[in-house]
Amino acid sequence: ERASELQLQKDAVSQKLQETETRNAELEAQLAGLEQRVETSQVEQESFRKSLRSLLELLDGKIFELTELRDSLAKLIDGTFVRARVE
Amino acid sequence: ERASELQLQKDAVSQKLQETETRNAELEAQLAGLEQRVETSQVEQESFRKSLRSLLELLDGKIFELTELRDSLAKLIDGTFVRARVE
Amino acid sequence: ERASELQLQKDAVSQKLQETETRNAELEAQLAGLEQRVETSQVEQESFRKSLRSLLELLDGKIFELTELRDSLAKLIDGTFVRARVE
Amino acid sequence: ERASELQLQKDAVSQKLQETETRNAELEAQLAGLEQRVETSQVEQESFRKSLRSLLELLDGKIFELTELRDSLAKLIDGTFVRARVE
Repeated sequence: ERASELQLQKDAVSQKLQETETRNAELEAQLAGLEQRVETSQVEQESFRKSLRSLLELLDGKIFELTELRDSLAKLIDGTFVRARVE
Repeated sequence: ERASELQLQKDAVSQKLQETETRNAELEAQLAGLEQRVETSQVEQESFRKSLRSLLELLDGKIFELTELRDSLAKLIDGTFVRARVE
Repeated sequence: ERASELQLQKDAVSQKLQETETRNAELEAQLAGLEQRVETSQVEQESFRKSLRSLLELLDGKIFELTELRDSLAKLIDGTFVRARVE
Repeated sequence: ERASELQLQKDAVSQKLQETETRNAELEAQLAGLEQRVETSQVEQESFRKSLRSLLELLDGKIFELTELRDSLAKLIDGTFVRARVE
C-alpha cells in the first residue's frame, strides 16, 4: 500500500518534471531567438550609424564648399567695386 | 525494501524538478529583462527616427531657401545686364 | 578792293566759327548725355552691389543654419550610440 | 578806315574761332576719355557678370548635391525602420 502510494507520487513528480523541462526548452529557444534578434539589430544599428556618419561627412564637405563659394562671391563684390571707384 | 527504493527515486526526481524550476525562473527573468531591453531600444530607435525626420525636414527647408536665394541671384544677374544693355 | 577781300575773309572765318560752335554744342550735349549715363550706371551698380551684399548675408545665414543642422545630426548620432552601448 | 575796321572784326572772329577750336579739342578729348571709361566699365561688368554666372552654376551644383544627400538620408531613415519592423 505504501509502495503504490509512493509510485503515484513519483509518477506525478516525474510528469511535472517533464512539463517543466519542456517549458525550459521553450524558454531557451525563445531566449536564443531574442538574443539573435538583438545581435542582428545591433549590427544593423552599427551599419546605420556608419551610413549616417558618411552622410555627415558629405554634409561637412557641402558646407565647406558653400563657404568657399560665399568667399568667392564676397571677393567678387568687393573687387568689382574697388575697380569701379578707381574709374 | 521496494518502498524505500521508490522513496529514493521520488526524492531524486523532486530534487531535479526543483533545479529545473529554479533554472526556469532564471530563464523567465532573463527573457523578461531582454524583452524590456528590446522594447526600450525600440522606443529609442523610434525617438531617434523622429529626430532624424525633423532634421530631414529642416534640411528640406534649407535646400528650399538656398534655391530661392539662387533664383534671386539669377534674376539679379539677368536684370542688371538687361538694364546695362539699354543704356 | 582790300575791304571787300577782308569782308570775304571775315565771312569765311565767321562761317567756320559758326560751324565750330555748332559742333561744340553737339559735343557738350554728347558729353552731358554720356556723363548722365555714367552716373545712372554708377547708381545702378551701387544698387546691384547692395542687392548682392544682401544675398551674401542671406547665404551666410543659410550656411550658419546648415552648420547648426550638421551639429544636431552629429550629436544625434553620438548620443544614440552611447545609449545603445549602455543597454 | 573801313578796311581797318574789317581787319579788327576779322581778328576778333579769328580769335573767337581759335578759342572755340581749343574748347572743341578739349571736349573731344574729354568725350574720348569718357567713352574709353564707359567701354572699360562695360568690359568689367561683362567679366563680373560671367564670374557671377559661374558662381550661380556652382551654387546650382551644391544645391543638387545637398538634394542628393537629403534623398540618401530619407532612404536611410525609411530603410532602417522597415528592417526594424521585420524583426
